[in-house]
Amino acid sequence: MFLDMKLDKDTPVYIQIKDYIKDMILSGMLRQNEKLPSTRELSSILNVSRNTVVYAYEFLQDEGFIYMKKGTGAFVSDINISFEEEWNIDWNTRINDYGKNAESLDIVKHEVEWKKGMISFKSIAPDERLFDVDEFKRAFLNRVSIEGDKILNYGYAKGYRPLIQYLLKYMKNKGIQIDGKDLLITNGFTEGFDLVLSCLTEKGDSIICENPTHNTAIKIMRLHGLKIKGIDLSRDGIDLNKLKEELTKEEFKLSYFIPSYHNPTALVMSAEKRVELYRILKSHNIPIIEDGFNEELRYSGTHVSPIAALSGKGNSVVYIGSFSKILFPGIRVGWILADKKLIDYLESIKRSRNIHTSFLDQAIFCEYLQGGNFEKYIKKARKVYKEKYEFALECAKKYIPCKEIMGEGGLHIFIKLEGVEARKVLEKCCERGVIFTPGDIFYIDGRGDDTLRLGFSRVDMEEIEKGFKIIGEVVKLLRI
Amino acid sequence: MFLDMKLDKDTPVYIQIKDYIKDMILSGMLRQNEKLPSTRELSSILNVSRNTVVYAYEFLQDEGFIYMKKGTGAFVSDINISFEEEWNIDWNTRINDYGKNAESLDIVKHEVEWKKGMISFKSIAPDERLFDVDEFKRAFLNRVSIEGDKILNYGYAKGYRPLIQYLLKYMKNKGIQIDGKDLLITNGFTEGFDLVLSCLTEKGDSIICENPTHNTAIKIMRLHGLKIKGIDLSRDGIDLNKLKEELTKEEFKLSYFIPSYHNPTALVMSAEKRVELYRILKSHNIPIIEDGFNEELRYSGTHVSPIAALSGKGNSVVYIGSFSKILFPGIRVGWILADKKLIDYLESIKRSRNIHTSFLDQAIFCEYLQGGNFEKYIKKARKVYKEKYEFALECAKKYIPCKEIMGEGGLHIFIKLEGVEARKVLEKCCERGVIFTPGDIFYIDGRGDDTLRLGFSRVDMEEIEKGFKIIGEVVKLLRI
Repeated sequence: MFLDMKLDKDTPVYIQIKDYIKDMILSGMLRQNEKLPSTRELSSILNVSRNTVVYAYEFLQDEGFIYMKKGTGAFVSDINISFEEEWNIDWNTRINDYGKNAESLDIVKHEVEWKKGMISFKSIAPDERLFDVDEFKRAFLNRVSIEGDKILNYGYAKGYRPLIQYLLKYMKNKGIQIDGKDLLITNGFTEGFDLVLSCLTEKGDSIICENPTHNTAIKIMRLHGLKIKGIDLSRDGIDLNKLKEELTKEEFKLSYFIPSYHNPTALVMSAEKRVELYRILKSHNIPIIEDGFNEELRYSGTHVSPIAALSGKGNSVVYIGSFSKILFPGIRVGWILADKKLIDYLESIKRSRNIHTSFLDQAIFCEYLQGGNFEKYIKKARKVYKEKYEFALECAKKYIPCKEIMGEGGLHIFIKLEGVEARKVLEKCCERGVIFTPGDIFYIDGRGDDTLRLGFSRVDMEEIEKGFKIIGEVVKLLRI
Repeated sequence: MFLDMKLDKDTPVYIQIKDYIKDMILSGMLRQNEKLPSTRELSSILNVSRNTVVYAYEFLQDEGFIYMKKGTGAFVSDINISFEEEWNIDWNTRINDYGKNAESLDIVKHEVEWKKGMISFKSIAPDERLFDVDEFKRAFLNRVSIEGDKILNYGYAKGYRPLIQYLLKYMKNKGIQIDGKDLLITNGFTEGFDLVLSCLTEKGDSIICENPTHNTAIKIMRLHGLKIKGIDLSRDGIDLNKLKEELTKEEFKLSYFIPSYHNPTALVMSAEKRVELYRILKSHNIPIIEDGFNEELRYSGTHVSPIAALSGKGNSVVYIGSFSKILFPGIRVGWILADKKLIDYLESIKRSRNIHTSFLDQAIFCEYLQGGNFEKYIKKARKVYKEKYEFALECAKKYIPCKEIMGEGGLHIFIKLEGVEARKVLEKCCERGVIFTPGDIFYIDGRGDDTLRLGFSRVDMEEIEKGFKIIGEVVKLLRI
């Protein structure tokens, strides 16, 4: 004993000694009332300072593993360890339908995995090489020096007040009237959407949305047991005639739309269509959940107001926002802007789920935003992504034979092939080191097997060209 | 226009100009194709540098609000703003039962609020004045300089790998065998418990636990529609005979216990009782959810192993851990240690709820822990809290006439009054500037109206004495 102890460099030595002895006690190698080596002995065995051993023994005493006898030394406490008969539960039989569905709808677990050296068009996360980490660091140091202790303690479910204020103003700058509305900070869009459905729907309710649509939204709607009706898209957004038709057939509790650089098609719903859509849903009194996805990533054309701006003081649109596709998704900060009364309920649900979103992250992010860093960053990011977007579009036209290429901005394009299955293309491409997202996962009704989404945000120009070429070659090969 | 613009000091000037013009456009004060002042004019009106105005105009152009005509100047774009008829929804009629329950069970909204100058014994959050913010800062700077860009981008649902490794070892050091088990990082205990119930229970299922118990746990169980059976406590934990009796009467899906410094009673379940409890639940094959609450805050006595340690390689205990009652609750980092298969399902649910817990927070916290800071901190915190605990106990005995005082460690004590209602005491105390948590909110069956919880972690010694005196005086007054 003790002689076999190997010290590593990464952990303080007193912790290693403490953990080693604990381990000996817990495993029964050191028994109740057994005497430990004196601090002098152990320090010489381990070739460490005596103080280090004294410190380790103090911790062991603090934690109730050993006791000291004056003038005699350290002894192992009666730690009451008892090994009971092993008891195993077959967890597979205990998981409910919700748990099973969550697992089977979890595409991260079931789609092809990226392997080193591959060119991946799967991601639509921002390119972290664009992040201005130094500004973020500065924001951290500023905020922490002002109120480090406070933001590391419990905060409020609704969010960090200065961030709420900042975002309310941000939303106002999009033309949204904020009187009578309020804002809840969430762990990204995903939590925002989940909270809204948790508060407003029951199993078996119907919801209407675009088809195809954001895969995570489909997953969450399915997990809430909703019946999903998807409406086809044309180049300027949802097909309004089909929408009207469906609305007469069935009662819908809610509607969900991604008007800007839609996921997966990257199409933009025109201003006229937004108005029309608003009027139609108003006439049926079906609240709109507007996904603010990618709104910041317009590269050309005039400003188009979010649907939430159309209603003035009206409260019928629930806007869910997030910067995660642009900036710092790792900190998971998003928001819901909605009617005050609704936010009040959502706040209670949020509190029951996880108390609040990290106050540290909210405070740093707020400091970062208030300093004007977001504006500077988005200017830079837009430039880089615009270039990539245009290049990707060009390469797609040049190399990938297809029926249609969609995409007017954002971080991805969407391709409709002709007479070829995207999953077969993926299989062959995968062998050649290129992967992408097959489009069928965005469809509600099992269609889309001839579509694919190509995310280019984290891929270099050179690799975009190389990767698209390979995809094109495979498509040609399979068409014959 | 422009002359009424007031510049503040906190926001960069170009942003203020941009926002002001946006506002004018969105509100219709500036109309389509209207010419903006030249950059030279505006810089002179506002008395700012011309470059600042140029920069602001660039942003407005980027965002599609204005367009430039060469040699002529800047003009307002056709931003397609349309104000539709106001459309209001009566959200109160749209909230489902879950949302309504979440609101009505939200004690933060319905219990007495702290007002400036009050002495509050409501909180059992750690005292932020103890946090070693400098070490935290160092951990941030280290980690961010190594992989700042990566930890600010998307991470993995299961958690930040080095933190998972650290916590697995930490759990091993409590005597828990980790083979065949895995660990999921959650947004604190609250999310951990909610995820486990989401995965394993259905509405109407029964769950058995201590009575009284953690109020947030009661809230979450109720929100899941569970039937809760609470078992009375004696001084060394749950009444095992009552437990056995209840187990024969009904089928239970799960059991939930807080063996260490239990909330709200601060009692510790004895080592013998833990073994007995384990055996009883094993014989009924009812999985145990063990809440690791406050385990780190033992001030005396020998180490008592968590229930999760009893089973060796067995997989029947789900351990939910959190440092939030000790350290940095604001960052919301907790964990679930459980069977690998179960964690696999929980991971998918976690991903569907909020993708993952902040990777920034996980990475900083991990760096902080690995440096041995937790050990140093807990040594200091234990000393301070122990002193406060002993003093609070002493003051309670001295000043508050009661039937029973409970509490063997942690950050609170629990008091059973005699013939006086705690809420009446609270009402009177509130008038005198002292508040606490009435004990009834911890009871499942409406009892406990003669109990109260006194949290002392964030109250100074002087105020503990002053506050307890007042409580004692009110109790005496009401007893007569």
